[in-house]
Amino acid sequence: MAEFLYGHWAVMEALRAGRRQLEQLLVVESVEERGRIGEIVELAGKRGVNVRRVPRRIVDDLADGGNHQSVVLRVGPYPYVELEDAFALAEKRGEKPFFLLLDLLKDPQNVGSLLRVADAVGLHGVILQERRSVAITPAVVNASSGAIEHLNVIQVNNLVNAMKELKSHDVWLVGLDIGPDVPPIDRTDLNIAIGLVLGSEGEGMRRLVRDTCDMLLSLPMRGQVASLNVATVGSIALYAAWQARGWEGWGQMVAPNK
Amino acid sequence: MAEFLYGHWAVMEALRAGRRQLEQLLVVESVEERGRIGEIVELAGKRGVNVRRVPRRIVDDLADGGNHQSVVLRVGPYPYVELEDAFALAEKRGEKPFFLLLDLLKDPQNVGSLLRVADAVGLHGVILQERRSVAITPAVVNASSGAIEHLNVIQVNNLVNAMKELKSHDVWLVGLDIGPDVPPIDRTDLNIAIGLVLGSEGEGMRRLVRDTCDMLLSLPMRGQVASLNVATVGSIALYAAWQARGWEGWGQMVAPNK
Repeated sequence: MAEFLYGHWAVMEALRAGRRQLEQLLVVESVEERGRIGEIVELAGKRGVNVRRVPRRIVDDLADGGNHQSVVLRVGPYPYVELEDAFALAEKRGEKPFFLLLDLLKDPQNVGSLLRVADAVGLHGVILQERRSVAITPAVVNASSGAIEHLNVIQVNNLVNAMKELKSHDVWLVGLDIGPDVPPIDRTDLNIAIGLVLGSEGEGMRRLVRDTCDMLLSLPMRGQVASLNVATVGSIALYAAWQARGWEGWGQMVAPNK
Repeated sequence: MAEFLYGHWAVMEALRAGRRQLEQLLVVESVEERGRIGEIVELAGKRGVNVRRVPRRIVDDLADGGNHQSVVLRVGPYPYVELEDAFALAEKRGEKPFFLLLDLLKDPQNVGSLLRVADAVGLHGVILQERRSVAITPAVVNASSGAIEHLNVIQVNNLVNAMKELKSHDVWLVGLDIGPDVPPIDRTDLNIAIGLVLGSEGEGMRRLVRDTCDMLLSLPMRGQVASLNVATVGSIALYAAWQARGWEGWGQMVAPNK
């Protein structure tokens, strides 16, 4: 089934990544082809994607209320991958496996925000449960600034089974939790084959998911409000893990600009 | 001038903190007094705040389109403090000064999100410029989950002058920047009297603000998209600085629950 991605970055990154079937680019007819829109139209041309000018209300409709910034890209479904693909990427890069597991997160903004960080730190795979959690909708693609178009996302039937499979590959599952008895994130060397597990907004990890973790770590908090958004907690933990790996892969990226 | 705070946490924390003039609590008339609403009404009673039941459309109007969750609190203006108050807090706690400076951030969600983290890590002060940046509106209070009601926020005419004043108090100003020539955040011991400086969404720090920093540090990124939201970058940097301080103040907070 066709999907309609919207927003400059979502559309741009879907075109750049080229992993989906790219069907048609729709641009609001009154908008000039310059700046970001010009780049998008040019890239669509290079990719052989048909570009059509349409009235604004059509783009409004297709973006379903989202902030489309005058562009919508009609594409095929999101290209989920298998666990083996993620392990293959780790092996190809010569890195210890690095995963993020999301237990029933609901908010597209949170998931999108975490996916941007997942891209920034070079995760090998992000694992989501198929039912009762957010799916990779155009809203999530938009909230991820298109980062998800470049990521390995694995959708599983049952998160606990996927955790067991990761364990059988010697991946350590580290759940982010709260509470005075949970040691802080810097108490453990995170430079290991790791799967970081985040619970849902408000409710945290489900019991069986928590019990399946190899260890629990917490983000200390000392304030009056003492609650942080799951995307904030996850972002900090992902960076802590990547820092423990010595910013692996960063030097290579920046070298060409030096 | 009266302001209308809205949303469970914003209203609850304003009542708990008690730093503003608390004028009246307005609750949607059809809503039952239990759960969070029950707690809010009870706390308002303890604080001697008049509680009024009103039709939903009045609460809708006063919250100006915000997600009010059936409650609005009429309060006096936000109690900004002076730089000396923040230094006094640091001294009282026996800690090295720990500040966050926001250079013309515009998005209430980003500012609110950073304020939650500022509360979580125990910042002594947050410095904002008065003009051309976000003010502490009810939308920001809401986005901060009420955290701002407990924080020291200093509003200044000119951010660069405030930076110079911090320097005269031996506070090191560390700007978060991007680029291959900027060293990563873990290259420097952040266990110092510090002011973290964040630039605005999209544009980063203004030139004079950047030039006034004592050093620049970056958050490495290796992804395809290579851009992170300023609230994400700031949250990670604030936690890195607090971690360098050995999670100062955290043990005391959790001890009573043990």
